[in-house]
Amino acid sequence: MFGAWRLLRVLRSCSSAPCPRPKPAAKLSVREALRAQNSNGERVKVQGWIRSVRSQKEVLFLHVNDGSSLESLQVVADSNFDSRELAFGSSVEVHGKLVKSPAKRQNVELKAEKIEVVGNCDPKDFPFKYKERPPLEYLRQFPHLRCRTNALGSILRVRSEATAAIHSFFKDSGFVHIHTPIITSNDCEGAGELFQVEPSSKIKVPEENFFDVPAFLTVSGQLHLEVMSGAFTQVFTFGPTFRAENSQSRRHLAEFYMVEAEISFVESLQDLMQVMEGLFKSATMMVLSNCPEDVELCHKFMAPGQKIRTYAEKQLFNVAAVDLLVPGVGELFGGSLREERYHFLEQRLASSGLTEAYQWYLDLRRFGSVPHGGFGMGFERYLQCILGIDNIKDVIPFPRFTHSCLL
Amino acid sequence: MFGAWRLLRVLRSCSSAPCPRPKPAAKLSVREALRAQNSNGERVKVQGWIRSVRSQKEVLFLHVNDGSSLESLQVVADSNFDSRELAFGSSVEVHGKLVKSPAKRQNVELKAEKIEVVGNCDPKDFPFKYKERPPLEYLRQFPHLRCRTNALGSILRVRSEATAAIHSFFKDSGFVHIHTPIITSNDCEGAGELFQVEPSSKIKVPEENFFDVPAFLTVSGQLHLEVMSGAFTQVFTFGPTFRAENSQSRRHLAEFYMVEAEISFVESLQDLMQVMEGLFKSATMMVLSNCPEDVELCHKFMAPGQKIRTYAEKQLFNVAAVDLLVPGVGELFGGSLREERYHFLEQRLASSGLTEAYQWYLDLRRFGSVPHGGFGMGFERYLQCILGIDNIKDVIPFPRFTHSCLL
Repeated sequence: MFGAWRLLRVLRSCSSAPCPRPKPAAKLSVREALRAQNSNGERVKVQGWIRSVRSQKEVLFLHVNDGSSLESLQVVADSNFDSRELAFGSSVEVHGKLVKSPAKRQNVELKAEKIEVVGNCDPKDFPFKYKERPPLEYLRQFPHLRCRTNALGSILRVRSEATAAIHSFFKDSGFVHIHTPIITSNDCEGAGELFQVEPSSKIKVPEENFFDVPAFLTVSGQLHLEVMSGAFTQVFTFGPTFRAENSQSRRHLAEFYMVEAEISFVESLQDLMQVMEGLFKSATMMVLSNCPEDVELCHKFMAPGQKIRTYAEKQLFNVAAVDLLVPGVGELFGGSLREERYHFLEQRLASSGLTEAYQWYLDLRRFGSVPHGGFGMGFERYLQCILGIDNIKDVIPFPRFTHSCLL
Repeated sequence: MFGAWRLLRVLRSCSSAPCPRPKPAAKLSVREALRAQNSNGERVKVQGWIRSVRSQKEVLFLHVNDGSSLESLQVVADSNFDSRELAFGSSVEVHGKLVKSPAKRQNVELKAEKIEVVGNCDPKDFPFKYKERPPLEYLRQFPHLRCRTNALGSILRVRSEATAAIHSFFKDSGFVHIHTPIITSNDCEGAGELFQVEPSSKIKVPEENFFDVPAFLTVSGQLHLEVMSGAFTQVFTFGPTFRAENSQSRRHLAEFYMVEAEISFVESLQDLMQVMEGLFKSATMMVLSNCPEDVELCHKFMAPGQKIRTYAEKQLFNVAAVDLLVPGVGELFGGSLREERYHFLEQRLASSGLTEAYQWYLDLRRFGSVPHGGFGMGFERYLQCILGIDNIKDVIPFPRFTHSCLL
């Protein structure tokens, strides 16, 4: 028998054992290099992609970015390093000394001792000019390359930061995370706009149904969270949801992300609204303190500004209804108290002929029912809201919508 | 114009404003109550479900659980509180005083002053007897109720803890989180076992394809992560993946979760293996320190013990190949260096007639290509491995496999 504590001891002894491999030269990300204090000429290695090249008579300036931050690291090299290969988009490895920069715009710069081009890039073939700040709409044609622009770089770093913040908020508030299913036999919201799932035609035996029942992509994790809130009291999920909606509007996607929470023993909408407000504030504060430059870039060059203003001035959730609509973005939050009384629910299901299919849902009210409620937050809409991004397709890495499923 | 810092100020002033509603009586989760130090008779409110009732001549003992921990809170009440409603499974709200417990098994107990039954439960109708520890296989028939057992409660709390730990590990290591798409037009691994996605037959116009191209559920986020590693250097995703595999084995699911990472500028398999090892250790240490009782329960009552022993004694990753197979569980990790050379890749794609479809993938090598690599970790297999759970269907809230898509 190998108990938990014995496993823990094994892992601990592993992690304190000295690493057998020789320690490599200090490799820094651009973010780490930019934040280095007391840079007194330590030798470091930085890897990334060239964002710009400026060649003077005796000196060559490169800006190198590796996606760890919006800002690039300035590399200063002797002009005899210059070559056609050192061009926008090329990947490089630079060895050198990290020193204080005489320029105002940055704290440190890297005095190059060796520059190795890892992979070439011919800027003439690259589909957009970096400095021309191509419109977001144009960039959507290149889902494999747009992440290399400042704009998408900032948006996706914020998306990553907000994702981590949402997980932290719920964990710190005592919620249990649940992976609600993507494929479901519940036809959750009744009528259409569902995607159906079947084994690819290559392998399908036509008469057979893989799951024995028709199966769909989830439109909400609510019912599954209700199951779990009867065991864990406070639960949340954060995953993809789907609508087969025939819309190419700037507000809709066929695949988008929802944060959903369900809470047992709630007494009023106020209880729910407190959690929603906590979630919004906590995530936004974390984003603003961890990537202020990225948010600033979005506000400066993309947001007309109104949305954020309108939103903040509304005084969050100080309204009677629990749906929160944001001008220009749509419904950001929707929440409600659920019907917890067995007989009411039974009647409603019976009148719709759904008693048998939803006996399990009735069971939740038969065995220790509690007043409960929950809410959903559209994650892309949240990002649009805090960043002021007009089109939902620009805040998700690979947008899917009618007539479009690139990559 | 409403900048990031102004928004931050607004949020900060919000959060320090006094709450207008009257402060409710101290409401504690069972976990919080059990951890209370210096319990000197503070008045508290606890809500949860009755796990057991023991009635003595003058005293009534209830154990109340709310899913926040494996352990229940002992409630001690005068025997005149006794009633038929106070039975296994009923939901209750208990007001009382938190005091030191004379019993050895717990630090504190709740001396009840008021017990309110919120929702009844008739134990005769409940499909399993709690104390009989029904086998996991039997419990699978009741996906809406099994989470109320100790076994599934522990497993799902560990799953939640591991999820949070995985996000933390990557964030702390400087990785950017990417939501790789669920619906994709890439037929990633070539041949079959794909699920195809189409609008539900109710709304489908047969001749039309919603996305204009055939669309499938993802089998891996690797290619999309490769796109992103060309911008952010270190990226990861943690989401559902799918196989339309006709298998009801204890090792396979149609819908399961993968953690995948992709790293630019890697020099060797060692670089990847270091990250894999860090991920495994960091997640496992966090699980073991945050929910030791849950892990212990799994080991004590469910694990035969061999798997963990075999695993730990193998000395993680001290092997030449980067696939890690765990006896009884299957492939836990699989990783590789990718082909970064344009001409090699071009030739291979050409010989398979895929050049046109994968021009975007070639582009990644045309514009600043870098040596890169990545790996995937099966999340359910990871849980099976650390908990010693035999069947993959018992470590996911709602298992989907051939002939089964309950709820």
